[in-house]
Amino acid sequence: MEFTLAHGTANDFVLLTDLDDQLDLSASMVRALADRRRGLGADGVIRIGRGTGDAEVFMDYRNADGSVVEMCGNGVRVVAKHVVDHGLVHPGPDEVVRIATRAGIKPVRIVGRHADGRVAMVEVDMGPPVLETDAVPFVAADPAALRHHLDVEEEVVAFSVVSMGNPHAVLVVDDVDAAPVHRVGPRLEHDPSFPMGVNVGFAEVSGQNRIRLRVWERGVGETAACGTGACAAAVTLQRLGLTGSRVAVDLPGGTLQIEHPTGGSVIMSGPAVEVAHGTLDSGWLAAVARVDEAPLVRSEP
Amino acid sequence: MEFTLAHGTANDFVLLTDLDDQLDLSASMVRALADRRRGLGADGVIRIGRGTGDAEVFMDYRNADGSVVEMCGNGVRVVAKHVVDHGLVHPGPDEVVRIATRAGIKPVRIVGRHADGRVAMVEVDMGPPVLETDAVPFVAADPAALRHHLDVEEEVVAFSVVSMGNPHAVLVVDDVDAAPVHRVGPRLEHDPSFPMGVNVGFAEVSGQNRIRLRVWERGVGETAACGTGACAAAVTLQRLGLTGSRVAVDLPGGTLQIEHPTGGSVIMSGPAVEVAHGTLDSGWLAAVARVDEAPLVRSEP
Repeated sequence: MEFTLAHGTANDFVLLTDLDDQLDLSASMVRALADRRRGLGADGVIRIGRGTGDAEVFMDYRNADGSVVEMCGNGVRVVAKHVVDHGLVHPGPDEVVRIATRAGIKPVRIVGRHADGRVAMVEVDMGPPVLETDAVPFVAADPAALRHHLDVEEEVVAFSVVSMGNPHAVLVVDDVDAAPVHRVGPRLEHDPSFPMGVNVGFAEVSGQNRIRLRVWERGVGETAACGTGACAAAVTLQRLGLTGSRVAVDLPGGTLQIEHPTGGSVIMSGPAVEVAHGTLDSGWLAAVARVDEAPLVRSEP
Repeated sequence: MEFTLAHGTANDFVLLTDLDDQLDLSASMVRALADRRRGLGADGVIRIGRGTGDAEVFMDYRNADGSVVEMCGNGVRVVAKHVVDHGLVHPGPDEVVRIATRAGIKPVRIVGRHADGRVAMVEVDMGPPVLETDAVPFVAADPAALRHHLDVEEEVVAFSVVSMGNPHAVLVVDDVDAAPVHRVGPRLEHDPSFPMGVNVGFAEVSGQNRIRLRVWERGVGETAACGTGACAAAVTLQRLGLTGSRVAVDLPGGTLQIEHPTGGSVIMSGPAVEVAHGTLDSGWLAAVARVDEAPLVRSEP
């Protein structure tokens, strides 16, 4: 089984190209691949499958825990680079690739190339932010409110909510380095107000149209970069009047550019990097398959 | 540049085969390879170089931070499996491979193979423990003592010291899950009593000749398994009369068997696993090389 290791702003992925949809990826295989010590190690595993509709390919994204995810802003850039660099998709003069995701078809544009022609920077139309809908259950309670409040360990936390296909709570903080990401993040994620959980962003306005951001990702914990989180933070700070429609978002793993014309889609651009290409060891694969076959409950004789 | 990803009890390594000693591994290249999000990700990088004396190969081991390390008990098993499975070394009927390390030549024996003939379990002669020498500076102060004491944040910590080529402090605890690994580990590591630093093991006697162990590794932090740490813990508990000469050591990453006949070498056996084989992306390599070339201090115009 062949793989590519890749990352977008240090959000890293195992890519498995499977354009004929032959691969049956079990949750335990995903966990084994994503294991950072016993496997290849990654935040997520992306099977690049056959496209649907006018999409050239399908981004079948799983989190490191094996769960299925709708959309990943860093992952979709990495997939675009992979399919273009390896000649699986030939974009036209508009440099656009259409990638199907569980959150719809995402048009992706190559906006920067290295001297050798390989893709360096990718722009993604992340769709419009969703501010008033049951896509974010918490919003439905008060769609007009810019700020919500919740008690987290006897402390009132103020935040805004927005969906970028997945739900986000965004907190504005004075100093992102000192932000209580590991204390408040999991509390909000698991608060009953968010029955589907929530991603939690901590955003500091660090300059004119510049944000420093850390994100606690639902089901993962703090990550080096979250593409939809960067969009959610940019939209929120724009709504609050703290930034304009075009901002640079500095995440621990790198910088993303976010543009959001009033009422339009959120446009994100950022780097995509391939690290290595290889083949899984057959003995390792056989051992993982044996785990797959093992019954969860052993029957007594 | 070709690589293998491998692990021994979840202590993971990037292996680079370089029997002609052609590879000039800079510290920044090691850090880039070991980076768990922007690189392949590993605890260490092992260049398998040309052997010296009667050793077939040389284990040129670097920690993830780029520093050079004398010896690694999990790494030497993984190297043995690699060179035997890939036909780089052909062991005789005694199944022994001699691996040169910076702590001397280590004879390594294949003691278990998979059905397809590939290596599964490897036994390593780790040499005798060093109990009274300036190899462990702290011991020199009182070579006869089995237990030493240090104040760590107004709390007196009792421990034993032993060198397995690298220095270890071993604490006996009632419950290894509750042990203050992340609080006491770094304090002892950086205590002035250990000018070269120290690895800190927290060992619980969990059964007859069975130990549960967690290790805070010098320069790394807590790891899933530390081979020399397992030896140091077994030798210490044997000296304290808590276990016999042959023990199983359960680490978070798996189990190692340790045997220590009175006055002899410490014999460790455990698994070795290869995960994947591949090639580093040329664009990634070029970007790392550019970082290498960048001056540390920019000259002003």
